[in-house]
Amino acid sequence: MTRDPRFDVLFEPVRLGPKVLKNRFWQVPHCNGAGSDRPGLQAAFRGMKAEGGWGAVFTEVCTIAPGSDVMPWVASKLWDEGDVRNLAEMTEAIHAHGALAGVELCHSGGLSANAESRAPASVVSQIASDINHLANGRALSRREIRDLRQLHVDGFKRARAAGFDLLTLYAGLGTFPIFFLYPFYNKRSDEYGGSFANRTRFTRELLEELRSQIDDCAIGMRFVVDTLEDPYGYGELGVRAGEEGQQFIAAFDDLVDYWDLNIGTLNWGEDAGSSRFFDTNHEAPYTRLAKAVATKPCVNVGRFTDPEVMVAAITSGQCDIIGAARPSIADPFLPKKIEEGRFEDIRECIGCNVCVSRWEMGGPPIWCTQNPTSGEEYRRGWHPERFEVARNKDRPVLIVGAGPAGLEAAVTLGKRGFDAVHLVDAGPAPGGHLNWMTRMPGLSAWRRVVGYREQQLAKLPNVTFVTNTRLDPEDVLGYGAQIVIVATGSHWAGDGIHPALHDHITGADATRPDVATPEQIMLEDKQLGASVLVVDGDGYHMGSTLAETLAAQGRKVTYATHFDNLGPYLRYTLEEQRMYQRLVELGVEILSQQLVVAYESGKASLVHVWSGQERLLQVDGLALATGRYSDCTLYDELLERDEDRNAAGIDQLHLIGDAHTPGLVAQAVFSGHRLAREIDTPNPDVPVPFIRERRLVGATEDDYRLGAPTLTTP
Amino acid sequence: MTRDPRFDVLFEPVRLGPKVLKNRFWQVPHCNGAGSDRPGLQAAFRGMKAEGGWGAVFTEVCTIAPGSDVMPWVASKLWDEGDVRNLAEMTEAIHAHGALAGVELCHSGGLSANAESRAPASVVSQIASDINHLANGRALSRREIRDLRQLHVDGFKRARAAGFDLLTLYAGLGTFPIFFLYPFYNKRSDEYGGSFANRTRFTRELLEELRSQIDDCAIGMRFVVDTLEDPYGYGELGVRAGEEGQQFIAAFDDLVDYWDLNIGTLNWGEDAGSSRFFDTNHEAPYTRLAKAVATKPCVNVGRFTDPEVMVAAITSGQCDIIGAARPSIADPFLPKKIEEGRFEDIRECIGCNVCVSRWEMGGPPIWCTQNPTSGEEYRRGWHPERFEVARNKDRPVLIVGAGPAGLEAAVTLGKRGFDAVHLVDAGPAPGGHLNWMTRMPGLSAWRRVVGYREQQLAKLPNVTFVTNTRLDPEDVLGYGAQIVIVATGSHWAGDGIHPALHDHITGADATRPDVATPEQIMLEDKQLGASVLVVDGDGYHMGSTLAETLAAQGRKVTYATHFDNLGPYLRYTLEEQRMYQRLVELGVEILSQQLVVAYESGKASLVHVWSGQERLLQVDGLALATGRYSDCTLYDELLERDEDRNAAGIDQLHLIGDAHTPGLVAQAVFSGHRLAREIDTPNPDVPVPFIRERRLVGATEDDYRLGAPTLTTP
Repeated sequence: MTRDPRFDVLFEPVRLGPKVLKNRFWQVPHCNGAGSDRPGLQAAFRGMKAEGGWGAVFTEVCTIAPGSDVMPWVASKLWDEGDVRNLAEMTEAIHAHGALAGVELCHSGGLSANAESRAPASVVSQIASDINHLANGRALSRREIRDLRQLHVDGFKRARAAGFDLLTLYAGLGTFPIFFLYPFYNKRSDEYGGSFANRTRFTRELLEELRSQIDDCAIGMRFVVDTLEDPYGYGELGVRAGEEGQQFIAAFDDLVDYWDLNIGTLNWGEDAGSSRFFDTNHEAPYTRLAKAVATKPCVNVGRFTDPEVMVAAITSGQCDIIGAARPSIADPFLPKKIEEGRFEDIRECIGCNVCVSRWEMGGPPIWCTQNPTSGEEYRRGWHPERFEVARNKDRPVLIVGAGPAGLEAAVTLGKRGFDAVHLVDAGPAPGGHLNWMTRMPGLSAWRRVVGYREQQLAKLPNVTFVTNTRLDPEDVLGYGAQIVIVATGSHWAGDGIHPALHDHITGADATRPDVATPEQIMLEDKQLGASVLVVDGDGYHMGSTLAETLAAQGRKVTYATHFDNLGPYLRYTLEEQRMYQRLVELGVEILSQQLVVAYESGKASLVHVWSGQERLLQVDGLALATGRYSDCTLYDELLERDEDRNAAGIDQLHLIGDAHTPGLVAQAVFSGHRLAREIDTPNPDVPVPFIRERRLVGATEDDYRLGAPTLTTP
Repeated sequence: MTRDPRFDVLFEPVRLGPKVLKNRFWQVPHCNGAGSDRPGLQAAFRGMKAEGGWGAVFTEVCTIAPGSDVMPWVASKLWDEGDVRNLAEMTEAIHAHGALAGVELCHSGGLSANAESRAPASVVSQIASDINHLANGRALSRREIRDLRQLHVDGFKRARAAGFDLLTLYAGLGTFPIFFLYPFYNKRSDEYGGSFANRTRFTRELLEELRSQIDDCAIGMRFVVDTLEDPYGYGELGVRAGEEGQQFIAAFDDLVDYWDLNIGTLNWGEDAGSSRFFDTNHEAPYTRLAKAVATKPCVNVGRFTDPEVMVAAITSGQCDIIGAARPSIADPFLPKKIEEGRFEDIRECIGCNVCVSRWEMGGPPIWCTQNPTSGEEYRRGWHPERFEVARNKDRPVLIVGAGPAGLEAAVTLGKRGFDAVHLVDAGPAPGGHLNWMTRMPGLSAWRRVVGYREQQLAKLPNVTFVTNTRLDPEDVLGYGAQIVIVATGSHWAGDGIHPALHDHITGADATRPDVATPEQIMLEDKQLGASVLVVDGDGYHMGSTLAETLAAQGRKVTYATHFDNLGPYLRYTLEEQRMYQRLVELGVEILSQQLVVAYESGKASLVHVWSGQERLLQVDGLALATGRYSDCTLYDELLERDEDRNAAGIDQLHLIGDAHTPGLVAQAVFSGHRLAREIDTPNPDVPVPFIRERRLVGATEDDYRLGAPTLTTP
């Protein structure tokens, strides 16, 4: 396939000081759980992006010294020679594909609790962190500022030694350039506080020093051009794009080789905005102002997945380079697919921020809803675009249920070359619960999980999709399959089972006319009256999404949860504040730390989880998002019938997705993918051990080599 | 020194099946942040306890398979041969001192979110975890129960292969024996649910299988004998000591070699009770009931630090073996010191639960307030009882300030053999802020931080303590010291500075008669009237302790914080629920998610942090726990006066503790200790790099060897 000339501009090289970017695709810094301590994961993950066509590929945020230890968050580190050695694996993997390797360097000052290093901490002015409440530090004296500059220079030199081409000084989130710049952090009265010149003095001194010592790498800045208004930003204590944002660009344009521009604060959901609240390219109004005063190439982000939008961003003068974090996670091969005109193969980011949630939790490796191979390139040796032909490909496969898990299993088994895969669903279309869930407010982009897989199925003649067919055990036994995969999903509990109680909410019975599950509301249009109490025992988005749905219908909605705030997992996906505000705007009353214990005809009993105080609430109806049950009776029955399965020639019987364990869509997709990747191993129900990168006593490099997890026997 | 015969009973050997415990000291399983992935930390930390005289030393909780991945919490793992190899380092270190090595094995089922392994999860009945809300699993079928038993057997065999002598099957917190046992978790209607015999069927099958396969290790159980009443426990959905607790012991006594007994639930602050809410040996009423029916040796815990209490516990028939987690962290040499009659050298646990807080945060290594070497045995090569003579010991040292940091520095420098150390304080006694803070309700045990160090100073003739002497810069310059260490502490802000605002609460000025800081209340007895609003911007205990103090004086107290609940760090120290209840009992009104933005003569303005809703409150006075400022002007002035210092012969000037960064007492003590350990390095202000145990590309074992951190250059 040849490139559509409309997109040629995306593939033009761009000069960045002493380096040349081969095209306009730039994987901006983003976390993946690897840091410097899992060098295999880091190298394989970033190398995959280079292979997929990204011209520049960055680390996540990379701290330069033990005083900026952000544990339990997983940053890269360039504290010592060991880190240089580990990150050199990454730069080699990137260079192998002709891309430039970038690193986003910072000292995170008083944001760091130094939980591992226990190092002395420093700050611009002594006030505890707004995010990490026990983190604080000593207000830097002048000579400590000098030492801090030297720490940065040393860190930059280690970055060069590790083979990085692009050295980004980070001026955003929690880093010294902005600790000095924002009046929010800087309360100094010496020559580092007060005027704009004073508040940028450190950054100027640092950049001049870096320039004088390093001339063979491109040096740029990632700069937050606007810190937004209350309640989402710092208001007058921060920086606005049209004012000090532009002033900053103008002041340092001659000292950088490129600008990587974005917006927001440590409350970074305004930057990595979820699709529920932000459209593609939502930062353009701010970054355009920066670009207007910059002479150096500018990178923008905006969850870009559509090449037409990318071209428009460049030709309209908004930016020079297309930056991407989440789109590059969902599809590391996005640039290649655009270049080759394979648009239907693009696995578009759905903007759910499950990737972000793993970093926010502190510790775990990245997950992606759309791309189950993300983070598994090294650990499990998975390539998002390459599939081994299965050793048992001649066995006919029946997959029951075309939700996210079943769809993913079907696509992956199809790509693994199975002769015949039948994907059978009781409904008229694939998608499972996503069919009704994506009709709820804000969730339409999640439909892409289904759309991508439908398009892939259309290209796989060996996979047959059968609709409107509900299979019972007899049907399965008689189907003629040798491999049966059950992916029949789950349903929201209608019996009021609640994880905090590990018991039922008394009277919460969805067979009653005034009590409903999400499915009853979305699929059956069950009506609960003018005032509804939504019970969230789940902790992710269903409770609040249900409240939004019902409130948007004009009902008076009360939302109650035993958690501290609405859907605590929404904090990890950076959606908590926006969701709260949306519900407030819709007039929803939000009751947190309130456990609903009983309901009877219009009266709900609540108990405050800490004080034990009781409270009654008059409502017309009750909507339950308290928990889910797997729909696994088909599997359970088949499992018990050994003889019948043998007689039917069924060699393998597996259970995946929500039918095994109700969970995130990301985990359902992974479950289907994992099984399909390992369908021809001796016991496909038990995952093949993955490589755990840790210090291993007496280990040699071979012990970690890809494909040789010799020490991880099951 | 010879042993006091009163304590002989503590040093009697105890037979445990095929093994013999050399005395009655047993380090029960507890976390330290090492797991299996930091084998050096694990081995050195546990080995130190064996060296200190503990007869048995255990891992923390140790999971047996990828399906019980509790990341971000750091458990030990015995998933594979690599883990066997890593934990063998620990058993060797323990055996080197004649102690037995123990491991607490479990599969944590549906408590595990499997964030790293992404393995399929299983549960007894399908309800999401009460603690880890997105964790759930598939309800086990009969054949999956069989597989689960085999997983356990395999794990136990790996434990034996790693050299463990004592294999504990864990029946507490989140493990299958109790998932089956408690009606809270078990809703099954098959032969694994319902009757006591059914609910213990899995455990019986498993123990019988283990017994048949392993006969050269002692096999025991850690069993929670009582899960307590609401709101601290499971009530009738759990187990009570006098009922199924005793029944369980009786049922399995013949299948175990020992019992390790405790109480509580996943809300484990009732077990690892903080000193604020629990006395020593608070579990005795429950564990006595268990001991009454057990024939096998019983271990009890109870924050035992006093040998007389230990002896009474044994001779009264409460237990056979003294278990300890926290006391063994605060003093790994507790048994040796008792044996040698060195009671004044015992570093008694203060029960602050900062150790626990590190596990709860997920990720970081252990900290201990009393023992700054805890967790540093390998990383920094520190031994709690051994000190190198300092190369600069002939230089006279002046330490200004005898709070936790100054005291610890003085003691440690004294032990490092300095000829002359002067510790000078402005007040009449050592302790710094602990002098007033430990007079607040519940904090008296924290006084031990001072007491231990006072006793050590009394034994160090080279350290002189000077009281009632406030030094100004001229005094310091004229003192005759070559090394000056400033440890002048911090004070609570009286200007209403608030971390969430990064600005002052308007009108919150403690020079006014109706606004006060904690010091003004505790040291000056400043009176705020009949109704007081306490503002907590700090997030640890000062806000709630202040509320308790004022309420106990009979005032009407309102407590307001912008956090989700009171003092979020109290969740990590397992004190949140008890503190909340205590305040409720005292009639304190608790307002969370409420930011106090302004105050003027009796009227406070609050804003809800999520909704933005405003609210006015009428109160007589305002108490501020919003932040602290370092008292570092002495240091800052001396730092600027290079010439004067040179002229005075001061070669080294250092700043430690809260005077550098206001923080936890644990961090202040560490700061003083760290400086004293490294006072003779080229730049003592910059910590010597510690060994970071991670996969290191191309590393050999030498790269990790204790004392050879070759790859961690500064």
